[in-house]
This record gives sequence, structure tokens and C-alpha cells, in this order.
Amino acid sequence: MIAVLKQNSTPEQIQQLIVWLKRMNIDVHVSEVKDVTILGLIGDTSHVDMELLNSLDMVSSVKRISEPFKQVNRKFNPNDTVVSIGDVKIGGGNFAMIAGPCSVESEEQIIEVALSVKAAGANVLRGGAYKPRTSPYAFQGLKDEGLKLLLKAKEATGMPIITEIMNIRTLELFDNVDIIQVGARNMQNFDLLQELGKTNKPILLKRGLANTLQELLMSAEYIMSEGNENIILCERGIRTYETYTRNTLDLSAIPVLHQLSHLPVVVDPSHGTGKSSLVPSMALAAAAAGADGIMIEVHNNPSCALCDGAQSLTSDQFAELNKKIVKVREAIQ
Amino acid sequence: MIAVLKQNSTPEQIQQLIVWLKRMNIDVHVSEVKDVTILGLIGDTSHVDMELLNSLDMVSSVKRISEPFKQVNRKFNPNDTVVSIGDVKIGGGNFAMIAGPCSVESEEQIIEVALSVKAAGANVLRGGAYKPRTSPYAFQGLKDEGLKLLLKAKEATGMPIITEIMNIRTLELFDNVDIIQVGARNMQNFDLLQELGKTNKPILLKRGLANTLQELLMSAEYIMSEGNENIILCERGIRTYETYTRNTLDLSAIPVLHQLSHLPVVVDPSHGTGKSSLVPSMALAAAAAGADGIMIEVHNNPSCALCDGAQSLTSDQFAELNKKIVKVREAIQ
Amino acid sequence: MIAVLKQNSTPEQIQQLIVWLKRMNIDVHVSEVKDVTILGLIGDTSHVDMELLNSLDMVSSVKRISEPFKQVNRKFNPNDTVVSIGDVKIGGGNFAMIAGPCSVESEEQIIEVALSVKAAGANVLRGGAYKPRTSPYAFQGLKDEGLKLLLKAKEATGMPIITEIMNIRTLELFDNVDIIQVGARNMQNFDLLQELGKTNKPILLKRGLANTLQELLMSAEYIMSEGNENIILCERGIRTYETYTRNTLDLSAIPVLHQLSHLPVVVDPSHGTGKSSLVPSMALAAAAAGADGIMIEVHNNPSCALCDGAQSLTSDQFAELNKKIVKVREAIQ
Amino acid sequence: MIAVLKQNSTPEQIQQLIVWLKRMNIDVHVSEVKDVTILGLIGDTSHVDMELLNSLDMVSSVKRISEPFKQVNRKFNPNDTVVSIGDVKIGGGNFAMIAGPCSVESEEQIIEVALSVKAAGANVLRGGAYKPRTSPYAFQGLKDEGLKLLLKAKEATGMPIITEIMNIRTLELFDNVDIIQVGARNMQNFDLLQELGKTNKPILLKRGLANTLQELLMSAEYIMSEGNENIILCERGIRTYETYTRNTLDLSAIPVLHQLSHLPVVVDPSHGTGKSSLVPSMALAAAAAGADGIMIEVHNNPSCALCDGAQSLTSDQFAELNKKIVKVREAIQ
Repeated sequence: MIAVLKQNSTPEQIQQLIVWLKRMNIDVHVSEVKDVTILGLIGDTSHVDMELLNSLDMVSSVKRISEPFKQVNRKFNPNDTVVSIGDVKIGGGNFAMIAGPCSVESEEQIIEVALSVKAAGANVLRGGAYKPRTSPYAFQGLKDEGLKLLLKAKEATGMPIITEIMNIRTLELFDNVDIIQVGARNMQNFDLLQELGKTNKPILLKRGLANTLQELLMSAEYIMSEGNENIILCERGIRTYETYTRNTLDLSAIPVLHQLSHLPVVVDPSHGTGKSSLVPSMALAAAAAGADGIMIEVHNNPSCALCDGAQSLTSDQFAELNKKIVKVREAIQ
Repeated sequence: MIAVLKQNSTPEQIQQLIVWLKRMNIDVHVSEVKDVTILGLIGDTSHVDMELLNSLDMVSSVKRISEPFKQVNRKFNPNDTVVSIGDVKIGGGNFAMIAGPCSVESEEQIIEVALSVKAAGANVLRGGAYKPRTSPYAFQGLKDEGLKLLLKAKEATGMPIITEIMNIRTLELFDNVDIIQVGARNMQNFDLLQELGKTNKPILLKRGLANTLQELLMSAEYIMSEGNENIILCERGIRTYETYTRNTLDLSAIPVLHQLSHLPVVVDPSHGTGKSSLVPSMALAAAAAGADGIMIEVHNNPSCALCDGAQSLTSDQFAELNKKIVKVREAIQ
Repeated sequence: MIAVLKQNSTPEQIQQLIVWLKRMNIDVHVSEVKDVTILGLIGDTSHVDMELLNSLDMVSSVKRISEPFKQVNRKFNPNDTVVSIGDVKIGGGNFAMIAGPCSVESEEQIIEVALSVKAAGANVLRGGAYKPRTSPYAFQGLKDEGLKLLLKAKEATGMPIITEIMNIRTLELFDNVDIIQVGARNMQNFDLLQELGKTNKPILLKRGLANTLQELLMSAEYIMSEGNENIILCERGIRTYETYTRNTLDLSAIPVLHQLSHLPVVVDPSHGTGKSSLVPSMALAAAAAGADGIMIEVHNNPSCALCDGAQSLTSDQFAELNKKIVKVREAIQ
Repeated sequence: MIAVLKQNSTPEQIQQLIVWLKRMNIDVHVSEVKDVTILGLIGDTSHVDMELLNSLDMVSSVKRISEPFKQVNRKFNPNDTVVSIGDVKIGGGNFAMIAGPCSVESEEQIIEVALSVKAAGANVLRGGAYKPRTSPYAFQGLKDEGLKLLLKAKEATGMPIITEIMNIRTLELFDNVDIIQVGARNMQNFDLLQELGKTNKPILLKRGLANTLQELLMSAEYIMSEGNENIILCERGIRTYETYTRNTLDLSAIPVLHQLSHLPVVVDPSHGTGKSSLVPSMALAAAAAGADGIMIEVHNNPSCALCDGAQSLTSDQFAELNKKIVKVREAIQ
């Protein structure tokens, strides 16, 4: 960490700052560039409160010279992490095609969708049981009941399943869930992350609506520092001033996260755009940018013409898209 | 709720949509403006998934004509809510001057700061025991121990106290805490909000980093719909592209929230700006804009010249600021 | 356009509003949904000041039911616009591979880069002569001299050229420039747009740093409404809170603009990310999302190891990338 | 300027970089902190392309240690700049109360409003003649005619006037305009700024929709570096994800700009919020935060009940607000 001091700092102030840092077991290397004093902080600076240091009157700016994340850092482990769920592997060249309905609605529905997406090439089944909703009056999912139906679909089709956890107190119900999803709103629910870090379950961690990629990696570090290395990062769109799309899908997250970390990166274009007509283009783009997986909402309701065009694709649209995704992945080899 | 349909919608599609809505007990009023069909949805539309409706291929746009929040709405209760904590009242013309250190560090520290801010005019003591931190390696507060020290300061000074909860499983430890703070990162931790709604504790709910004012009110609705009416809203800065300040303090939140809701509104300029040199200006601005309270970080460490200039004010700076705040509040009567 | 009135509006107020609208030759269709009055505005509403209407006390919200742009609208012309520059065509299945250095530096440099990118598959040469710079003290390009060198490279290689205009008073110098670029900072320089609309030059219009896609189309409408139909839209990244990348490249702009408009869409991943290591992934993603062209910075300085890794690719990196782009474009057919 | 190099940089690369910098007359001070090399750049670094340097593969990060702006810097001139327009002074304790209609509509209208705002305490008259509009089909102001009417109001009332310039080619028409306004969309129209820098007219420079405070100061530097020191900075709201207000008024701009620069700072709460009901609170807040002036839209149309509640205040509302502003300014002395 480097601290650039303000030009009018007195030697007494500088000395006091150095003493304060040394009390935290930080060695300080002082250099002068023109009339500016620069402190190089040597030692384990992960305990130093960068924001506090930055807010001191005598400090002009503070800059980390090493990333604040450790175990999720590619420097810590240069090889791609491969998350395994039975036969399905994610990362290191292995691609996850995660598909399923927004919400689990009935046994018939979830099994029907599962069979159709499996036939179309999906290798993981998604389905919402607990649904975070902005309004307390909106439908919050079938909850425990939805989880049971999802498990039936797993049994019926042999597909591994992924679903979202919203409260650590329901963790035991997720025993047979293959991948636990942490939603965007819980990306910085640090207590939840630490508890999930004590399990060995694969965790899919979604980027928060206004979180930086570094913050996403720090949240993954919360999980990994507790011992769980099975983490999948997920880009699902950030909040910007643009209103045409529900969120702005930040696909540069794929190469950036691959540079910074060894963890696999999955993209969710359904939530990322909020419009089914945009999903195929953005799914293909994610594949071309090197994503390790894509997560897509698919419904299977031929009798409901209304549902066409919602955020979800039909099974047929998904099947067609999947073929192109395979071709795009070949094209970038 | 109004749904504007796309021009090329067929009568069959429109009929299907109406049937679907009627199944949810929604009456539909159809009107035509030029060649565009507009549906007026009549009934309890709080159950209608606006995003789903909006994402249908045949729907051009959807617009609520009534706010989605109910109990927190000023239309529901035109009179200002006054939250009472013993003798201290917040809202309806009553002003909360909340002050104290960022973190509780020791018994001596917290009592000393408490006495000095009380003398300077503060009527509520703040102090962090559980600290949400981006990094798992950073200091996370004294936790339970910090809470106990804060309670000692309450006893020693008679000041009501406010501190942040991060995990619903620690709720019982907050029995003697006067106001429970929900931090920005937990604003949409809906399970936590519902649990706090089942208590009768005053809750100070901070706006999330990228949350709209309507989402803040919906989160307050989560608490109030469970029975707890003692809610204080708090603006603490939002995340923008500007990097000079830690956050962008959105003071228009004060008049907007006062128009939309009967709940009191408090402003936190310390976190909102991240620099002590900006705190006085923004605290005075908040008072001039009609805030029902201000929450300020104050430290009391004359031996530590370093601390001057951090996000926190000294006791003396706070005392001087408080005098001006009183004058500004008189000026806007 | 639809105006939803507030519930407490009096019949007199509503009558006054209708009279005011009729004075602007707008017919008004009144309907009631529950206790809410909705006005449907019929006629040429492009003259109605939507923001003014929206800000009236009695108006709850205003919603356009038709897009505010006309000639650039796909409804106006369902067929893709193809912009032709000699043999090079852009749009309607024709792909522009635009490459060249950030700035024109010398005759030798620009011709050398031009030859190498042409050999690697580029069909348009880019090069900055006038450079918009945040600081008045920074290098602002070779200006007129740079333009002359670029024209020499055009002559030497036969490649059409594109370069940025910053001031309408230099327009005559652009006589032999094939595509005039309007930079992000000038996207809403309406006087400049109107002047360019009076020419028949192909214009590449870059999206502003904080402009919506609708605003981009409105700026294209400024050009087209003056008679110039040769417009190419360009996504180059928007400003968000994320700091790891220089901008956040919004690739969903590609399918959205294709749905709304018949104009071709080009993507600039070099400015969009600010890091050469991210350019290939994002260029491939843009191609997979259906872009009509990609604009890439390429330098050609084997003696300058420093330059490797800057925002620009080397010629070799560009050649390799171009091969993959061709394959990705085949994969999505 | 400081450049932190990546850990795997070779001595050869570092040497090459130093040679490259020295060619730009930059002396380099090398220091090592742990295994990281840090370069201190000494000399006139305003010519060094910070973004280019930052994008080099071997560079981890670049940090300026001195602000990139010079003449507008408070370090350059510690005393507040006072901009004088006849008897009216702005800055250094002198307050500008700028009021008038959004657009100049007729001689009768502009003179009537001018007289009423003058009576209510305004000391500068505003009025739009050239109006930048997102749509080419919207009313763009009375242009030259509007300017003439505004000059008549100046003559009739003795008030100095401010109005916006959109095109440098109309500059001669502004000879008798007292303050020339540069709108948000032109904040980085560098050619326009340089031309205005060659005049000695007071310039009110509005912050762009997505521009940082440092960029605002760099644009002011463009004007001042050409010789014109009569610059007034103006905060008018930035674009965020919040949709309830038209823009997010960033009042922290006031103390930040006062710390960084000697130039006066004016706030425009009318455009900053877009709703007249929010204007008084935000105007009072701006005064409390130490603004050197406030710019408010006032209309004067008692026969038009519709206009009440639009972005503009009535003359009576303005008169009442002005009294409170005076009191708030006294309160913060």
C-alpha cells in the first residue's frame, strides 16, 4: 500500500503517522518525489483501514499495490478452478448450460421444463423456490414446497439443480441442492457468505446491482476464507441510468474476472436484460467473450401465448440458441 | 396500473391477456387512443408482477397509477409519524442529533465521547459494534463486547443508543438498544426486515448504495406490514461515477420522502461524503432541506493528531456545528 | 402520449389542461380508471414538451406511446440501411472492420499501420487528427497536418478513412474524408449535428458517456431530419461506478438499436474498455451479438516494447483477432 | 505523478519506460517497496498521457500527486475570485440571486417577470433564448429574437442578464449579455470553451450530466488558460439511476469546489430536480452549504393555473423563498 501525503504535512505529523502504522506491524518506506512525501507500507496491510487512512487530513491519496483478495486471486492459484457436480464440470474449459423456469410452479411444470431443456442441451436445471421481491405483497415463490418440487425434477431427470438461498436458517433444506445461488441483493450479506463458506457446497455468487468486480471478488473471498473453494462467479447486469434494459449487462466482467481470479464465470442474460428478445444476442456474446457458463430462463407453456416474449425463452428458442452457442464456442478456440 | 399494448397486437392476444388478468381478480378497462390499445387494471394490483407484464411481447409499457407502498404512504396517514425513544422524539418537528464514534473501542472511549457529544447538544448516541466490512480480513468491530460497552455508556449518560444489526440471530442482544440500525447493504435483506417488523423497536433504515427512493419505501413497507410502525428513513449517499466523495449524498431525498411518506428522515453526512471537511456543509444543508435528524461521527482523541481530518469530527467541531444547525432550523421556520 | 392525472385534480383543472393541449392541435381522449383520469393525446405530439407536462402539479406521469424519433425508426423503414463508401458497405449483413492508430503521428507511421491492418483484413482505416482532451495542456493531435497525413495513407493504400470532427468550422477540410466521426462528447452538440445533416457524408455517431440509447437515436434524428441518411451508430462504453475498466461497454446496445432502428451499429472495444488485454474478448462478443462493424486501435511499433499492452493491439494481435471474428460471424448465421 | 509497476516487470522494460519518460523531459525517481517498483515522475507532467501510461501492460496503476488543473486551483490563487457585473458581485461573500423564466416568450412576459423577481430580491435576470433540446422537433427557443427581448428587459429594469450560448458563431450577438452560460451538454465542447476564453465576458459553466468535479475544473481551465478569469461554476444535477427526480443534485459539489478552486459556485435547483415542489428545499440547502448564488426558474402567469407546479416557481413563491435564503445565509455566518 502506498500513501501519498499532502505537501504541507509537517515532519511531526509524518512521524506520528509512521508510529501509528508501526503499531499495526507495518514497516514504512519513506521516499520524496519533488516536495511530496510518499510512504510505502510493507507487511500485512490487509488489516489497514484504507478508507480511514485516506480520510486523514494529511493524506492526499492511498493506493493498494497488491489486490486485497488472496485465495480467489489468480496469483494464489494460476490454474483455473473447476467446480464439479457429479459429471458436470464448470470452468477450465468446461461449460455449464443452466436453464429452467423463473419460478417453480408445479411438479408437472418443473419436470416438463427440465426434460425439454435437458433434451436441448442444458446440463444444470435452475428454478426459483425462494424469490426475493421488492414488495412484501408480491408472490415470494413456493418456498419449501418449491424446493421439494425441484428435488423431484432432479430425481426424475438426473439433472443437478441450482436454486437461491435467502436466509441462512433454511440451509438444511438445501442438503440435496447441487449449487446454492446467492442473489445480487445478498452479495454483501457477509454473515450468510461466511456460513456458506463452512459448507462444501458449490456456491454461485451473483454480482450486486452496484458492486464493483473487486467487491465481488472480496465477497467470494469471504466464502473461500472459511474453507469452501467451490465458487462460481456470476455477472447478471448492473444498475445504470439506461432504462431500456432492466440492467446493463457488463460482459467485460468475463475477461476481467478471468485475469484477476481462477474462479469460473457464468453470465445470466435473462435478468441482465429483462427482455427475451435480447437474451439470444447477449448469450452468444457471453459465450464469445469466454464465459464458463450461461444461465437462461426457459418456460414451457405452449398453451400460453402470453408467456412468449416475456423474459423467458420457449424451449424451442432455447434449443436453437444452444446450437449457436456451441458453434460460437468452437469459433473462439 | 395501466398497460399500453403494442400497435400490432391481435384481438386474440388482447383477449388472452384480459382473461389472464381476470384470473388474478383484476378488472380491465379497455380504451383506444389512435390505433393503440390501453388497458386500465382495476382491483388490487399489488399482486400483479409488473416486470413480467412489462416483458410480454405484446406490451409496450406498464405504468402504476398508484404507489406500490401502502402503510408507509402519506396518503395512508397524512400526519407525520413521530418516533419516541423515552424523552427523545424524532419527526413531526422533533429533531434527532445523533452523534458518536464510528466504532466502539473501549469503555473509556465510548463514555468520554458520549459525555462530550451530550454536552454539545446530541440527544442520541451512535457507535458501531458489528461493522460490515468489504474484506473478511478487516476489523469487524468488537461485536458483542462492543454492544456491552455501548450499553454502559447509555447507563452512564442516560442517552438512548443506536447501533447496527447484521444478523437476525443476534437480535436478543439488542434488547436494551433503543434504535436498531439496518445498514445500506442489508436494505433489501427482506428476511431481516420482516423479523424486525415483528418487534416494536424503532428501526433506522438506511438507503442502499444503488436503491431508489421507492425501493427504500418498499423496504420500510416490509417492516411496517409486519406491525412495527417505528421506522426512521436514512439517506447516506448513493454510488455514482464521482470519485472525489465516497458517495454522492442525495439531499433531494429529504423533500421527496416527506412528500411520499409520513416517516421521519435522517441524514448521515459522515458516510455520505467520507471526508470530515465536507461534513459541516452537508449537515447544514440537510437541516435546511428539512431533515428530521442528522447522524454524525465524532471522535474524542486529543492526543491523536492523526485522527483530526478523518471522516469524524472532533467534539469541538461538532459543538460548533450543532449551534449553526440550530440556527438554520430556526431560519427555515 | 398518455398523461395520468393525480387523483385530486378538479374538473376545472382538467378542463384547463385540455384547452391548453387543444391549442397545440392535440386531440384529447379522456378515460377514467377507478378514480384516476387518463388523457390520451392524439395528433403530432412531437411538439409537446413532455418534461413540462410531466412537471405540472396535476399530472402524475406522462408516457409516450410512440417513439419520439421518426426517420431513424425501423417502423419508418423496415429494411436495414446500408451505408456505402466506394466498395465498402456497412449494415444489412455487410461488416466494417475499422482499424488504425489512436493518433496520426507521422506519414511513415500511418502508412505502415494502414498497410498492415489492410493485410490483416481491415476495410476502413481510422486515425485521430483532432483529439478531444480533458486537459488544455495535453496533446490535442496533429490537427490539419494529421488530416493531410491520413489522406496520404488513403491514397497509398486505397482504404477509405474515418476521423473525428470537433468543430463545424473545419468541415471543408473533411472533403476527402470518407466517414466523419462525431465523438461521444459532441453527441448532443446539436448545431454540429444539423450542419452534418446538410452534407451527404457518412457520419459515425458515437454514444455519449451518459446518454441513453433513445437519446443516441434522437441525435441521429437531428442529422437525418436535415437530409443525410448515411448514419452509423457507435457504442463505445458508458460511464458507471466501475473503475476497473475505463468505461462499461454496453453490448445490449446492439440488439436494442437493431430493434428500434434500421441504421447500422458499430462497436469500439478499445475506448470501451481502455485495456488492450480486454479488447479481443469484447470484439468477439460484439460480433456474436450481431454488430455491423468493429473499430479497433492498432499500432505498429515493434521497436517499442512499451506500447505493447496499451489500449492498442499490435498488428499481429489484430490479424489473429480478425480471423476469429470471421469465424464467430459465421457461427451466428 | 506516480506509476506503480507490476511485480513481473523486467529491468529491461523498466529501463525502456524510463527512457521514454525522459524523452518527454520527465525526471524519474525509482523506489522499491517490497518487490514492487514505484516510479516518481518529476517535471511538467501535464503533458504525460496518464491514460496511455496506465494502459501499459507493465504498469499496475498511475496516480497524480498534484491536481491537473492550474490557474483555477486554489493553490494558484488562495483568495476567492469575485466576478463583477456592474454593481453585482458573485463570490467572496457576495451572493447572486439569479431568477427568470425558462424561455423568453414575449416582451410583455420577460419584462413582467423581470420586474417581479427584481422586487422579490433577484439581482440577475435569466431567460432562455437558444434552447438545447433532445429532439429536433421540439421548440428550440426564440433564438435571436429571444435575445433581443431579453436585452429589452435588461434596459427596462437595469438588471444584468444571463443566457445560454450554443454555437460560437452566434458570439457577436452576445455583446450586451452580461453573463454567458455554457450548458451541461457543452461542458466539454473544448473549441467553444477556448473561444470564450478569448473574451473577457463572465462565463457561467454548468457541470455536464456525467462529468466529475475534476473534469468541470479542467473545462474551466480551458477558459482561463486563454486569459478569461471571469468564471462561475454551476452544479445542476448529475445523471444517476434514480428516476423520481430529473437529476440528482450533488450539493457536496459546493464545499468540494470551494476547497479545490477559488472560483464562485452557483447551484441550479430547478433543473437539478425538475419539480417545483422540490426547489425551495434544495435552494435552502444550497445556501446552507455555502453556495455563492442560486439560479431559479420563475414564471409570472397568474391566468395560467396549469403553470403552477411546473419546474418554475411563481413570483410569490420565489419572494417567500428568497426571504428564507437570506435568513439561512445569516445563520451559517
